[in-house]
Amino acid sequence: MTTLSPYDSMSPVARAAYRSQAAAAEIAPLPRAVKDDTLLAVADALEVRTSEIVAANAKDVARAREAGTSEAIVDRLTLTPERVRAIASDVRDVAALPDPVGEVVRGSTLPNGIDLRQVRVPLGVVGIIYEARPNVTVDAAALCLKSGNAVLLRGSSSAYESNTALVRVLRDAVGGAGLPADAVQLVPGEGRDAVRELMRARGLVDVLIPRGGASLIRTVVEESTVPVIETGTGNCHVYVDADADIDMAVEILVNSKAQRPSVCNAAETLLVHQDIAPAFLPRALDALAEAGVTVHGDARVLAYAKDSAATVVEATAEDWDTEYLSYDIAAGVVDSLDKAVAHIRLWSSRHTEAIVTNSQQAARRFTQLVDAAAVAVNASTRFTDGGQFGFGAEIGISTQKLHARGPMGLPELTSTKYIVTGDGHVRR
Amino acid sequence: MTTLSPYDSMSPVARAAYRSQAAAAEIAPLPRAVKDDTLLAVADALEVRTSEIVAANAKDVARAREAGTSEAIVDRLTLTPERVRAIASDVRDVAALPDPVGEVVRGSTLPNGIDLRQVRVPLGVVGIIYEARPNVTVDAAALCLKSGNAVLLRGSSSAYESNTALVRVLRDAVGGAGLPADAVQLVPGEGRDAVRELMRARGLVDVLIPRGGASLIRTVVEESTVPVIETGTGNCHVYVDADADIDMAVEILVNSKAQRPSVCNAAETLLVHQDIAPAFLPRALDALAEAGVTVHGDARVLAYAKDSAATVVEATAEDWDTEYLSYDIAAGVVDSLDKAVAHIRLWSSRHTEAIVTNSQQAARRFTQLVDAAAVAVNASTRFTDGGQFGFGAEIGISTQKLHARGPMGLPELTSTKYIVTGDGHVRR
Repeated sequence: MTTLSPYDSMSPVARAAYRSQAAAAEIAPLPRAVKDDTLLAVADALEVRTSEIVAANAKDVARAREAGTSEAIVDRLTLTPERVRAIASDVRDVAALPDPVGEVVRGSTLPNGIDLRQVRVPLGVVGIIYEARPNVTVDAAALCLKSGNAVLLRGSSSAYESNTALVRVLRDAVGGAGLPADAVQLVPGEGRDAVRELMRARGLVDVLIPRGGASLIRTVVEESTVPVIETGTGNCHVYVDADADIDMAVEILVNSKAQRPSVCNAAETLLVHQDIAPAFLPRALDALAEAGVTVHGDARVLAYAKDSAATVVEATAEDWDTEYLSYDIAAGVVDSLDKAVAHIRLWSSRHTEAIVTNSQQAARRFTQLVDAAAVAVNASTRFTDGGQFGFGAEIGISTQKLHARGPMGLPELTSTKYIVTGDGHVRR
Repeated sequence: MTTLSPYDSMSPVARAAYRSQAAAAEIAPLPRAVKDDTLLAVADALEVRTSEIVAANAKDVARAREAGTSEAIVDRLTLTPERVRAIASDVRDVAALPDPVGEVVRGSTLPNGIDLRQVRVPLGVVGIIYEARPNVTVDAAALCLKSGNAVLLRGSSSAYESNTALVRVLRDAVGGAGLPADAVQLVPGEGRDAVRELMRARGLVDVLIPRGGASLIRTVVEESTVPVIETGTGNCHVYVDADADIDMAVEILVNSKAQRPSVCNAAETLLVHQDIAPAFLPRALDALAEAGVTVHGDARVLAYAKDSAATVVEATAEDWDTEYLSYDIAAGVVDSLDKAVAHIRLWSSRHTEAIVTNSQQAARRFTQLVDAAAVAVNASTRFTDGGQFGFGAEIGISTQKLHARGPMGLPELTSTKYIVTGDGHVRR
């Protein structure tokens, strides 16, 4: 589709992507053992060169502190020797995972005798645009290498020194192991222009995965001509059905909301069937109050709040649409399961939706009607996670329907090709 | 991601898409029997109302003739009673195919006892933008209904009367069977504005599939914010290896090029290993001449053309990039298999690439290194087709790497969701 301009007249970003393509072609056919040895060399190099990495990171941290960045964000940015060891350990874990490349997804002998096989192959060049945490640099590179892809990394400018040091170590180790160092590259250039060029590099970049806040993801989704995998926005609901175990419902609600409120699989809205509201809501409000959660309730929830120690404020329509990522939750009472489903259809970001119920019929209807990457029955929304699902690692959680939906592990970083083998077969 | 404006303030296209979403939600959970009965009712209705359809089509045909349209295109536009019967028969074939929805793609019990299942679900609303042939209207609707999707159809203005009549019949039959008629809609409005609105209906349309010429597909790929599945551009190569059976190579070459030159899986370039060129090329040029094919040859091919009856013209760089879709083929001699692979990497549209060889090593290297939806060994490029692959039907042939690659059958019109079932599980 895309006619490429000659290398000399390409932008620096396009040149980097062009070199990524060349590297991708080299690593795509490599067998698992070569890729695993490279990953182990990467892990060793991260440990050997920890002080260089931590020193570079200290510059980013100092700059962030000077700029008055919040301690929570400074903490996410900070690399200690211990954290570098943990990152290296994660790379070894990726090496231990099965290689998706070469898996025969389907195969048959056609009536005419042709052998047909559909085989997993790498995507090619994967672009990742991400925010503060420098561990993503290594995680993403390790997952891409394992799946035979080259990676083009675009981290946050606030982590520039850290990412530069990490990528230097990664490239040295990859090159030292005999693979093309260009399999791991930082997107050159600064600011939005470089990101814009990356988003227009269709034909040179095979997929872009934005990881971060909603506004970053929206920008990439709307402006990119490179295919995008949308990740991570989670306006997740917990629906407590008429026929639910109240202890279980309270525990799942509090866990979904408060076990780690800053992540995409945390619950943001509670919906309660009107029949169970009198028994459930007082208990739930107390438990949320104890967990430090502010409730943004509709009129019916507010009516239960009078006798509660809970902090309950009046919800507006905006609350139904809000991914708080904080100790806040919207809450409403619904007339029926179908009303809950309709509310979820209207406001959900289609990440994870949970029902708590003892009714087999209700569980079945909810899982059939709710359209989301994951639907949980009598389980916390917090389980939607590559690690929890047993994938070993994840590159993100897709909230789109094409290619990959939900936690993305190594197979989601692959495409397929058909191998059609005959003995001189022609079509009549 | 998308905040929807209220229905009243939506554009006509967005309103149609909004109604498609409502219809999609209704048909997504329907069991196979209901969908199959609806498809059989559609097939019956097409036969019962054939004269209405043929009469509408006659208006399009008359208009096309007045406009001086070529007879080949008029023929593709024309519906006869026999062709309508064939279309109805295709709908019955779709009814007979297995339903992809509900298939458990993977499932396991996690160490903590949670049951995890990944289940196929419909995509939702599928938009199809296509050119002249009105049979696509019915094919696409049948495949979408079978896979539980609503379809938004945007045909060519040259087939407006035909498509309007067909969709009227489809909607009557779908509604008569008790399903929402809005599961099948034409995109309202005329001209490019309507297409542009369709391409911006992110959040209302789940996927857009352009079917047609390269310029239509390029426009949709570049301008759409709705996720796109790119289809159908085929700059396919036949590579004749040093160690090939010459009879087989000639037969595969002629079949790949000339069995049906106007389709995307026809070959557009021949590459010949230099060692076999003296024995192969004279035979190949004669056979191509007999099939009426003009050869656009490089200097080395031209040298063999002197003693041939073949029509051979000098190739320019543009020829390597051309999808002729006609009785023309580019041809070049290469020094090695790796040079053939490099040529293909540079010019291929990544649809179908074929090697003819007796060497196991060459076949293995070619299939590993060539990056395409399909790689054929000792078989014609013409086999890359949903029908040939045994999929029963196809909605198009994807030449992209995300979501679907190669012929797309019913499973490619689905996404998945994870069902996470516990007994009150919370995350620690």
